[in-house]
Amino acid sequence: MLVYLNGNFVPAGAATVPVHDRGFLFGDGVYEVIRSYGGRLFAGQAHLRRLENGLAALQISLPQFAELPAIAASLLRKNGLQQANAMLYFQVTRGVAVPRRHYFPSPDTPPTVYIAANAFTPASALLETGVAAITLRDIRWARCDLKAINLLPNVLANQQAHAAGADEAIFIHDGVATEASHSNFFAVIQGRVLTHPCTPRILPGITRAVVLELCRQLNLPAAETPPAAVLLPQADELFLSRTSGEIVPVVCLDGKVIADGRPGPLTRRLQMAFAEYVVHSAE
Amino acid sequence: MLVYLNGNFVPAGAATVPVHDRGFLFGDGVYEVIRSYGGRLFAGQAHLRRLENGLAALQISLPQFAELPAIAASLLRKNGLQQANAMLYFQVTRGVAVPRRHYFPSPDTPPTVYIAANAFTPASALLETGVAAITLRDIRWARCDLKAINLLPNVLANQQAHAAGADEAIFIHDGVATEASHSNFFAVIQGRVLTHPCTPRILPGITRAVVLELCRQLNLPAAETPPAAVLLPQADELFLSRTSGEIVPVVCLDGKVIADGRPGPLTRRLQMAFAEYVVHSAE
Repeated sequence: MLVYLNGNFVPAGAATVPVHDRGFLFGDGVYEVIRSYGGRLFAGQAHLRRLENGLAALQISLPQFAELPAIAASLLRKNGLQQANAMLYFQVTRGVAVPRRHYFPSPDTPPTVYIAANAFTPASALLETGVAAITLRDIRWARCDLKAINLLPNVLANQQAHAAGADEAIFIHDGVATEASHSNFFAVIQGRVLTHPCTPRILPGITRAVVLELCRQLNLPAAETPPAAVLLPQADELFLSRTSGEIVPVVCLDGKVIADGRPGPLTRRLQMAFAEYVVHSAE
Repeated sequence: MLVYLNGNFVPAGAATVPVHDRGFLFGDGVYEVIRSYGGRLFAGQAHLRRLENGLAALQISLPQFAELPAIAASLLRKNGLQQANAMLYFQVTRGVAVPRRHYFPSPDTPPTVYIAANAFTPASALLETGVAAITLRDIRWARCDLKAINLLPNVLANQQAHAAGADEAIFIHDGVATEASHSNFFAVIQGRVLTHPCTPRILPGITRAVVLELCRQLNLPAAETPPAAVLLPQADELFLSRTSGEIVPVVCLDGKVIADGRPGPLTRRLQMAFAEYVVHSAE
């Protein structure tokens, strides 16, 4: 398996960065994950636009940004994944700087660019059975709209979910559900599909946006209204959206079964519509 | 210059970690900085205890923890720093794990241990002249008591200060000053030395604790009461405490001169007492 690192294609096991990389010392970087369906990137442009926005927010200049799609295509090809289901991972950090100082190094410091492509087998069974989730207080920073590699709170939350036999941790902030540790979150309450609006408290998920678009197309009542935490146990349906898992039903929350414990009818309609959408959205 | 990395002493320029290190991908680790005064570590045990607490909070098991002081001593010696003013940097991450998943890898995954020792010339002039600072909204996560490598908000804040010609950014949370981007913060208001109490909103600074101890010894009225942001411009004195800079007067805040623009009398007394304290606290 080859990965791309700063201009070179190298074996994944040999891909290393200096300890002085600001990604390693400060988490000073952003990342992006793009899914390839049989060789076709899903919403590749939207993902790269978000990466570009993140770099701009961090004031990381990446002159070779426009080359990323070609590099990704090349990486898929070199790994024999050009027609496979695969996951592309992009990470850009502020590069290597000595001595370690919080403020930015010289603007001519080249950023570190790391791209990996891996074969991906979707966890399709979860789409049918649904998953368990837990709720946790949202202790993250106030710029969750940035897909930054400062992921320790997400790591700790996801581990807590994992240890509880659950798939995800749903964050509660000021009495409402924001999103989950690596997913956006939707609740169907009194027949309406609700999700937190795009504020700095959530990542503007690509799959999340597609779900809202599909609600419009299917005439499902949807609103970017944050679901109240107290209403979640009695919700009609709950689901997660994410690049890797698409639309994942949540059938158990904090150990309590949601509705009849099976993926709900709106969730199923959206899953099917999403599968159709993927087929018709070639990029 | 040699650094220590996972059992080996290697040239700093050759010290690299795999891209799959969870420090690089998630900021999943903690760090510590210890100052050596002429070869004697200042408050080494307190720093290592904080590192140990951080590892425990992150559930990172480091069997070789007890060897860190010997490794640090060896590193100072190998770099000819055994009698120099130096700075030791320790970083421990959750190690290398494939595939990339938020939750913890297998418990037998060895953590990554990186230690560097560098000659350090204190910025003594700043102790005399003081520095400028800016205030910024505290957008960090709710576990600032952990010295984690998730430092992007600190980086962005410190850069904003630097771009404004200031040394530090002081964080304001709910109307009070918490701490700064890489320092604790004190305000002398109506003759009392105030600093934010040790809650999860601030790092329990080692130098901060020494300052409070010195206030007791000097019979200076001090309280762990968060300084109100609105009172800062009219404060008698402001100062920062940090391992690298000791006690740094803040003489200008958000472009406005504090008091007469020179380090205040309590700040000076504490600086002198701190210098004495360092001399007498051999470890």
